[in-house]
Amino acid sequence: MTANDEPGVGVATVGIVGASGYGGAELVRLLDRHDGMEVSVLAAHSAAGRPVVDLFPNLPDHGTFDDIDLDRLGDLDLVFVATPDGPALDLVPQLAAAGTKVVDLSAAFRLPADVYEAFYGRAHPDPTSTPATYGLTEFARHEVAAATIVANPGCYVTTGLLSLVPLAGLLDLATLVVDGKSGTSGAGRGLADGMHVSHVAGSIGAYGVAGHRHTGELEVHLGALGGVARPTISFTPHLVPMVRGLLTTSVASLAPGVGADDLRDALHDAYDREPFVTVLPPGRQPVTKAVVGSNSCQVAVAFDPRTGRATMTSVTDNLVKGAAGQAIQNANLMLGLDEAMGLPTIGTYP
Amino acid sequence: MTANDEPGVGVATVGIVGASGYGGAELVRLLDRHDGMEVSVLAAHSAAGRPVVDLFPNLPDHGTFDDIDLDRLGDLDLVFVATPDGPALDLVPQLAAAGTKVVDLSAAFRLPADVYEAFYGRAHPDPTSTPATYGLTEFARHEVAAATIVANPGCYVTTGLLSLVPLAGLLDLATLVVDGKSGTSGAGRGLADGMHVSHVAGSIGAYGVAGHRHTGELEVHLGALGGVARPTISFTPHLVPMVRGLLTTSVASLAPGVGADDLRDALHDAYDREPFVTVLPPGRQPVTKAVVGSNSCQVAVAFDPRTGRATMTSVTDNLVKGAAGQAIQNANLMLGLDEAMGLPTIGTYP
Amino acid sequence: MTANDEPGVGVATVGIVGASGYGGAELVRLLDRHDGMEVSVLAAHSAAGRPVVDLFPNLPDHGTFDDIDLDRLGDLDLVFVATPDGPALDLVPQLAAAGTKVVDLSAAFRLPADVYEAFYGRAHPDPTSTPATYGLTEFARHEVAAATIVANPGCYVTTGLLSLVPLAGLLDLATLVVDGKSGTSGAGRGLADGMHVSHVAGSIGAYGVAGHRHTGELEVHLGALGGVARPTISFTPHLVPMVRGLLTTSVASLAPGVGADDLRDALHDAYDREPFVTVLPPGRQPVTKAVVGSNSCQVAVAFDPRTGRATMTSVTDNLVKGAAGQAIQNANLMLGLDEAMGLPTIGTYP
Amino acid sequence: MTANDEPGVGVATVGIVGASGYGGAELVRLLDRHDGMEVSVLAAHSAAGRPVVDLFPNLPDHGTFDDIDLDRLGDLDLVFVATPDGPALDLVPQLAAAGTKVVDLSAAFRLPADVYEAFYGRAHPDPTSTPATYGLTEFARHEVAAATIVANPGCYVTTGLLSLVPLAGLLDLATLVVDGKSGTSGAGRGLADGMHVSHVAGSIGAYGVAGHRHTGELEVHLGALGGVARPTISFTPHLVPMVRGLLTTSVASLAPGVGADDLRDALHDAYDREPFVTVLPPGRQPVTKAVVGSNSCQVAVAFDPRTGRATMTSVTDNLVKGAAGQAIQNANLMLGLDEAMGLPTIGTYP
Repeated sequence: MTANDEPGVGVATVGIVGASGYGGAELVRLLDRHDGMEVSVLAAHSAAGRPVVDLFPNLPDHGTFDDIDLDRLGDLDLVFVATPDGPALDLVPQLAAAGTKVVDLSAAFRLPADVYEAFYGRAHPDPTSTPATYGLTEFARHEVAAATIVANPGCYVTTGLLSLVPLAGLLDLATLVVDGKSGTSGAGRGLADGMHVSHVAGSIGAYGVAGHRHTGELEVHLGALGGVARPTISFTPHLVPMVRGLLTTSVASLAPGVGADDLRDALHDAYDREPFVTVLPPGRQPVTKAVVGSNSCQVAVAFDPRTGRATMTSVTDNLVKGAAGQAIQNANLMLGLDEAMGLPTIGTYP
Repeated sequence: MTANDEPGVGVATVGIVGASGYGGAELVRLLDRHDGMEVSVLAAHSAAGRPVVDLFPNLPDHGTFDDIDLDRLGDLDLVFVATPDGPALDLVPQLAAAGTKVVDLSAAFRLPADVYEAFYGRAHPDPTSTPATYGLTEFARHEVAAATIVANPGCYVTTGLLSLVPLAGLLDLATLVVDGKSGTSGAGRGLADGMHVSHVAGSIGAYGVAGHRHTGELEVHLGALGGVARPTISFTPHLVPMVRGLLTTSVASLAPGVGADDLRDALHDAYDREPFVTVLPPGRQPVTKAVVGSNSCQVAVAFDPRTGRATMTSVTDNLVKGAAGQAIQNANLMLGLDEAMGLPTIGTYP
Repeated sequence: MTANDEPGVGVATVGIVGASGYGGAELVRLLDRHDGMEVSVLAAHSAAGRPVVDLFPNLPDHGTFDDIDLDRLGDLDLVFVATPDGPALDLVPQLAAAGTKVVDLSAAFRLPADVYEAFYGRAHPDPTSTPATYGLTEFARHEVAAATIVANPGCYVTTGLLSLVPLAGLLDLATLVVDGKSGTSGAGRGLADGMHVSHVAGSIGAYGVAGHRHTGELEVHLGALGGVARPTISFTPHLVPMVRGLLTTSVASLAPGVGADDLRDALHDAYDREPFVTVLPPGRQPVTKAVVGSNSCQVAVAFDPRTGRATMTSVTDNLVKGAAGQAIQNANLMLGLDEAMGLPTIGTYP
Repeated sequence: MTANDEPGVGVATVGIVGASGYGGAELVRLLDRHDGMEVSVLAAHSAAGRPVVDLFPNLPDHGTFDDIDLDRLGDLDLVFVATPDGPALDLVPQLAAAGTKVVDLSAAFRLPADVYEAFYGRAHPDPTSTPATYGLTEFARHEVAAATIVANPGCYVTTGLLSLVPLAGLLDLATLVVDGKSGTSGAGRGLADGMHVSHVAGSIGAYGVAGHRHTGELEVHLGALGGVARPTISFTPHLVPMVRGLLTTSVASLAPGVGADDLRDALHDAYDREPFVTVLPPGRQPVTKAVVGSNSCQVAVAFDPRTGRATMTSVTDNLVKGAAGQAIQNANLMLGLDEAMGLPTIGTYP
């Protein structure tokens, strides 16, 4: 639903701040077909006043970017903050203070202050506000529904956690190694030599090796949501020559006494009634394209008796379940709507 | 809307024959979010009985393919025929005879019998039935709404025609050269050396040079819809290393007395009130990714005073506006629904 | 051959200016295996002093970029100028004046001054020096061998001309429409929204429509090398989601009395003894990947009796035969070496 | 060097069996510029008699595939066997018995019989011949030079081992997890739904999870070449949407008393004088495109003090250092030639 349509009775008014990024634009795309929210502000900092189509050729009829006007945003029912962390650290508390619900897609309020400091190398500027309610929706429905601020999980961590949280107590997490593979849209629109098409196309490489910031988010929330002590995890992200889609491949030994069936049963118990998570049968592996464009996640687990280790794989569209889609899933709950409203479940394969 | 949901009051029951192809699967994806149709049959010939997910990893919850059962299909309100031409030649008339409306995505009934014979090298087996109502929706609304059988236009021709029909009387069509660039999904799921990823990825080439069958469709319907004598056109299709998306680049001299503004005005007159076609402003060129996943088309025209020729460019998603999306657009009209129901307008950029 | 190796007897010393661009780096790659030239200067303007590997991860052992030092360059046997046009306009005449042979990969000296002014909108700053000897090697061997300055043809024009020059007298060039499709490396290393991987990957679009500067180069040299009056051509370039490779698709009516066999014969007469150009047999179309990494070109012609038009297709690697490879081919001649020395003929398919 | 050229004095005559596969075609490409070997037989089983260009558009001038004629092959100095394992099991011993040296690119003779049986589920048919001399050239020069049969390492294992062998004694190999990412050419030319361009392009997924056959090869030779007990390794291969290039990402804890500097020193000790292996400096990660088309490998190691684990990354072109290039490197040694003869070191970046 766009600002040009007549809002229906009871339709919530929402805004998007940081609309000049991919996460913001993806919110526009998804909310265009949402019956319960109307986007009335599309705000951006440096792009304010520019035609939206200049940045997003798929949005030829969306006017110009608005300024970030706190008064105007404070009148809305809910605001999606899709800015970098820096502006979010300021904006989110101000909006909440104005009584506006906030889904924060940045990493500003995902971590406890001590973990933030460990991974960012500086103190969190607002330690009493962090972490906000962590919106991995499938594991935090009630908290999200009651929250004013939801910290929307990152794309790597969403994808990894969905395959790991139900297994947290069944694995020896001290042995856990997570290998992440992301499409390029996860790196945003910013220009850099490493994002030039002639550099990236047809090539793969790791980045942020040994200490990527999202490792902290993975550790904190795998512990918290999995009901186990916070683990220490090796995580290596990679840039894959594709635009959308994210795969995590996680390997760990099993906890004592656990068998392969226990792992599979735990995933089915967690997800068989979930609209957005599918557990694949033995022998099938997820591919990212199955979920591109949708809010779905597909997970699989395979046990290797020779090594005693299990391999968990999980795919999402990093911009949907890994960002804008899950943000809407959370906003639906915060606004009292059906959690799945407006969210596609079928990827645009092929 | 899937077969698992409860159909609403007044929801039409529809079937898809040839559901094992990309066009069929795309119908499933789009109809999953359609409020006015319920897919109750997903039929395929050789894939009957196989799990849908075996072929389409984005459809993990869609059971198995049905047999092609004419009795069952004949009870439906409408059937989308997405088979190859051969089966469609048989199926379409039988379904229509049973009183079922049909949108035929194959090329079986798009051409007059004489043109069919000229391009296919054999007589049309059912010359009195062809051409069926040609469903380039923007130019055939009333005919489509009244039709029992609609021949859904091909992807190249849809894309080319949308940029050419409003200009047909303004161009010297004897000079028209059309260069088509298609994503690989236009070639279907069939295995062939020329479709192997290691052959296609990172490479472009022409195919069907000098006499591609879709040239006849382009000529016939540019003449008919443009209200001009049937032109003779040079058309060269190319396979581009991308999966979805189609671009046509058409070059022609202007008819005597026509100026650049006339071209632009004609496009705006044709499309400014259309939900699925956008005319880009001077200086902007369409890119396929702007429309991928959506039923939208973007067109542009540029005049070169040095050569006296105009260049018309047009993009669609070959599987949506070029196939399943336009089929739904036509079916909406045939069933008395809002023409745009269930059809996304915003592409999944980036 | 790199600067680290011992130069052989009679090995020419060469330099590369503009080595921080793709054309310059490709020269380094190709000359590394060349027995007759030794690269002793790798100069760049803004990148001077930076490690080469910072820009080119395939060159980890090539030290730092040199300053552009005219004294040092003037002592070399030959210099490849791979800068933008602006610096080349200054550098090339100065080097020539110092007695150094120059292969200029920029567009600075490819056009007569009047054509330059028509397409660039400003007077050529050095009208008496332009055009330099135009180095489409297959058609200018003797001139190149005797030249001090060679203007190395652009990638689009090289590719188009190789399929058109032998046919220039057999086609009605007033009807010629050329559609060019280039990999992204043709646009250089510069950062721009339009070169961001998330924008380009999986998408195609036209650019520079109706008046691209390379049209003038195509017209001038098709006329001159083809021995016909300078034609006026419609040329539309496209950016294809692949890194290397360039395809031109050219359509034109035949001149009176010309038949399909005449076209094919003319191509075979021109190329059957050429090491770098292959004429494909009827029914086969070139794909860019067949020539990627090599100095080869593949051409095909198909005649359509229905339209009376012929379609000429031609592929090269835009960085090799379209830039660095042809530059070496020309330099070989200028230095009295075997024309094919150091130049691969087999593409890195798949 | 092709069969059409005049062989030089002392040039070895070689044959390629299985020339219809990518490994065979890559041998043709590389040997075309090799001064010490002449390819006189290009044999294939099912493709015998077919024009080479039908399968490989980059080889338009290479005639037709030969039959597999043991008499003719037995007269050659050396034969590259690039067939599947099955034919290689027969061919290799027969050729060796005829006195012909063999580089076997298949997996037929890479494993001890017991490991073969464990991973292939059947007894090795020729247990006394396996393993042949394992040709990871950098670690087996003398053995290769003296061998009649060399088992050429697989692409995943070559890439992984080059980053792991020098560190074998410094890591706690019981914790080793290897994640492999391969371009599609590693899967060969065979047609399958999983190799259809529309399935693979823009998508990533794991395959062969928990028990891929190449795990055995990795374990056996990491133990043997690293001088340690044979480890048990978790290895997960992935298909990446690119054609050439392979990356392994390996994570392991350090052995007691080992520090980060020890790892880096060990890599430099191993490779600083090697022409084909580059150790990247701290902070730099390898990308596959840096080595595509070349016989080079780039490796990096990063230590994470937080986890106590090191991450080793390594890239090759799977068809060159991972197949045909290393095969030539081995053949050079077997024929008494310079080990690096004919092998490019600079990748075709971008």
